[in-house]
Amino acid sequence: MERFAAYIDANRERFRVELADLIRLPSVAAQNRNIAETAAFVAQRLQQLGAETRLLTADGGNPMVYATIGNGPRTLLIYDHYDVQPAEPLELWDSPPFELTERDGKLYGRGVADNKGNLMLRIQAIEAWLATQGELPINIIFAIEGEEETSSRTLPAICRDYADLLRADGCLWETGGVDLSERPTVTCGAKGIQYVELVARGASYDLHSSYATFVPNPAWRLTWALNTLKGPDGRVRIPGFYDRVRPPSAADLAALATIPSGDDDALLASFGLSEFLDGVRGIERLRRHLFEPTCTICGLISGYTGEGSKTVLPNEARAKIDFRLVPDMEPAEVLHQLRCHLDAEGFSDIEIIDLGGEHPARGPLDAAIVQAAVASAREVYGSEPILYPTMAGTGPIYPLCTALGTPVASGAGCGYHGARVHSPNENIRVADYWRAMQWMGSLIKHFAR
Amino acid sequence: MERFAAYIDANRERFRVELADLIRLPSVAAQNRNIAETAAFVAQRLQQLGAETRLLTADGGNPMVYATIGNGPRTLLIYDHYDVQPAEPLELWDSPPFELTERDGKLYGRGVADNKGNLMLRIQAIEAWLATQGELPINIIFAIEGEEETSSRTLPAICRDYADLLRADGCLWETGGVDLSERPTVTCGAKGIQYVELVARGASYDLHSSYATFVPNPAWRLTWALNTLKGPDGRVRIPGFYDRVRPPSAADLAALATIPSGDDDALLASFGLSEFLDGVRGIERLRRHLFEPTCTICGLISGYTGEGSKTVLPNEARAKIDFRLVPDMEPAEVLHQLRCHLDAEGFSDIEIIDLGGEHPARGPLDAAIVQAAVASAREVYGSEPILYPTMAGTGPIYPLCTALGTPVASGAGCGYHGARVHSPNENIRVADYWRAMQWMGSLIKHFAR
Repeated sequence: MERFAAYIDANRERFRVELADLIRLPSVAAQNRNIAETAAFVAQRLQQLGAETRLLTADGGNPMVYATIGNGPRTLLIYDHYDVQPAEPLELWDSPPFELTERDGKLYGRGVADNKGNLMLRIQAIEAWLATQGELPINIIFAIEGEEETSSRTLPAICRDYADLLRADGCLWETGGVDLSERPTVTCGAKGIQYVELVARGASYDLHSSYATFVPNPAWRLTWALNTLKGPDGRVRIPGFYDRVRPPSAADLAALATIPSGDDDALLASFGLSEFLDGVRGIERLRRHLFEPTCTICGLISGYTGEGSKTVLPNEARAKIDFRLVPDMEPAEVLHQLRCHLDAEGFSDIEIIDLGGEHPARGPLDAAIVQAAVASAREVYGSEPILYPTMAGTGPIYPLCTALGTPVASGAGCGYHGARVHSPNENIRVADYWRAMQWMGSLIKHFAR
Repeated sequence: MERFAAYIDANRERFRVELADLIRLPSVAAQNRNIAETAAFVAQRLQQLGAETRLLTADGGNPMVYATIGNGPRTLLIYDHYDVQPAEPLELWDSPPFELTERDGKLYGRGVADNKGNLMLRIQAIEAWLATQGELPINIIFAIEGEEETSSRTLPAICRDYADLLRADGCLWETGGVDLSERPTVTCGAKGIQYVELVARGASYDLHSSYATFVPNPAWRLTWALNTLKGPDGRVRIPGFYDRVRPPSAADLAALATIPSGDDDALLASFGLSEFLDGVRGIERLRRHLFEPTCTICGLISGYTGEGSKTVLPNEARAKIDFRLVPDMEPAEVLHQLRCHLDAEGFSDIEIIDLGGEHPARGPLDAAIVQAAVASAREVYGSEPILYPTMAGTGPIYPLCTALGTPVASGAGCGYHGARVHSPNENIRVADYWRAMQWMGSLIKHFAR
């Protein structure tokens, strides 16, 4: 693989310009920006490899860029996404979010870590393989969707409609990288999610706040309703919420025991915190992180939020909430439980807007794709990879892998703990980008065995 | 007074342009916009009357435009303000907020009802008096401040520093107009206020919401803290909050009994509501409105508030809250009680920003200024005025009147129930503007007796 590495070194400048061109397209799914342009850009880049491409769509959703290349006994499905999170709040970025900017050995830009960096480096690694190693020894299928950041709304339908195109012997997931201790990680599952917006309404327009003596205030209604969902003890109060939670298996717990829990104090310092929830640390923090569901207020808005004081009685209040789900919770069931709970607590006036749901998934830890991801990581990084039974985040593993019987592993990615994914100043480290391309090359080699 | 009325009719177009010129200055105190320009504009208009003017300031606050004119045994203090509320949310205005616009017999613009309309019509009425009736039969002092919409921060200091300049036999308050039944109203007091912003903080930047398993969420902290302030029963839970509430006196209750409580159904329809808090109606609604304190969420903000979903764990959450106070509550004491309460409930991490406080005040109902306001209203409107012991809103009556021993009455104003004060599409009815100028002329005549 020396020629492979040399090819990458020789093409760094061009590869970086390609990444910058992809970042420059503000493909924010939540805001429906530049979706078609970005899908076309990605398809064209795959055609440059020699791949056959097509766009798969369902229910008027954003297109999935589908591509095939290579020939061999095993088939590898590579899942990435070309959409990104919103860049707001814009004022907290130190450089323009859609202009890839290097500072102190890092590359900053919206989507550079989640997930345009991995998407581009995997394509570029395959280019390096073809240029230096000859034909690909495996079949590769790219499935690059455009709705990952809005709960992959139409991906389940695409997976149903085109199941025969998407079957594979293993799936390389979008994520991958190193943890706080710089050891590479391999992950075999994901949490699910149910995202909702709660809307409380009052008078038909904002009123002078003196009317608060007799006019209902939707900001109070929302506060009281939210308070019934979760209290300071952190326990979700929605009846039935925990009923389907599957306890970690023996294999899950065995894998957990081998995961370094990381330096709590370094993580606290990185987040600017003095302690975590309930003072939790170490392996217990990790156990919660991987195996417990959550209920999170992601956003709140009502009334006057500008400078200084404005004595106004708001006419509306909104909360955005995500529930992260673990196997075998069902997003639709959580949505139903939430409605029943609010009704039972006297909040039938509060509207629930369904902003999307995804099933949780957890794959086998001993599959060929997992072994290939681990062996290639060991080879490239020179340290023992860490095997995670699941990530704490969410992705559509269930429809794309679990439902089609495909084992899954993350890997061949440039992630690291300081990436600020979903936040202002999202970034990757430049060195990680080139190293993850080595990982990708090695993963192809190991999966072909 | 026929020549007085004729003069007004002859000068309507010029008077209206003057009002539009004043509205055009966006003197938003909370945003510190155009304060000096607007004070200068008002001072110049008073000089045109022949008044002597000066600017009074304290503690670096916005200047009060102070002016004196006339000569007689009694001194009338006229209190108005040249600052206005923020115009946001701008997208809900049907015409530009700072461009006075006539539609369907109404004039729309930020501040036209609160309080630039009354300010300008009182000056113009005095011009009409001087032009048609000769010298003023009373001393008039104008005290026109620039911080009314931000709790009159430095007005108490100005009143202390310049007490001798501000003493009077009666004070005409900024407000005035007709109620739902079109009868003129006269008001002799105001509620106080304590405005605060609560700030909950978490990590030093927004995180991916998967971290919610172990990273504290300030949006939840704020929700739980707010919930301890007031529950769905509407009762404020801060210990001691109600201790100083003075029950309405016999005179207050006698006045209350003569106030028409208005058409509940018409008011509900106007606000787009199906019922008021606790289903309250009629005189009981009015009793609460005048004599009970409030605790109101005026604004909420945290995390992502844009379109669609963003899975983010916010690093900060903020709530703006006003407490409307009744005699003999003390703003500073409420602030102290709030801090003690949050600490006792385990929320010492939540910062309280003091955005200003004002004392409540209630003056005598039988003073000369009250009698003059009532008699002049009766004369101009041909119906019996309604006497309110207090308004439900807030104003600095305490430092400007109560502390100096000056009785107070509202009147000679163009207010009406549809004015949308503090809201988008704030407006007055054109006909009310000219009629209130008649009221002002008659009030001068009656107060001179």
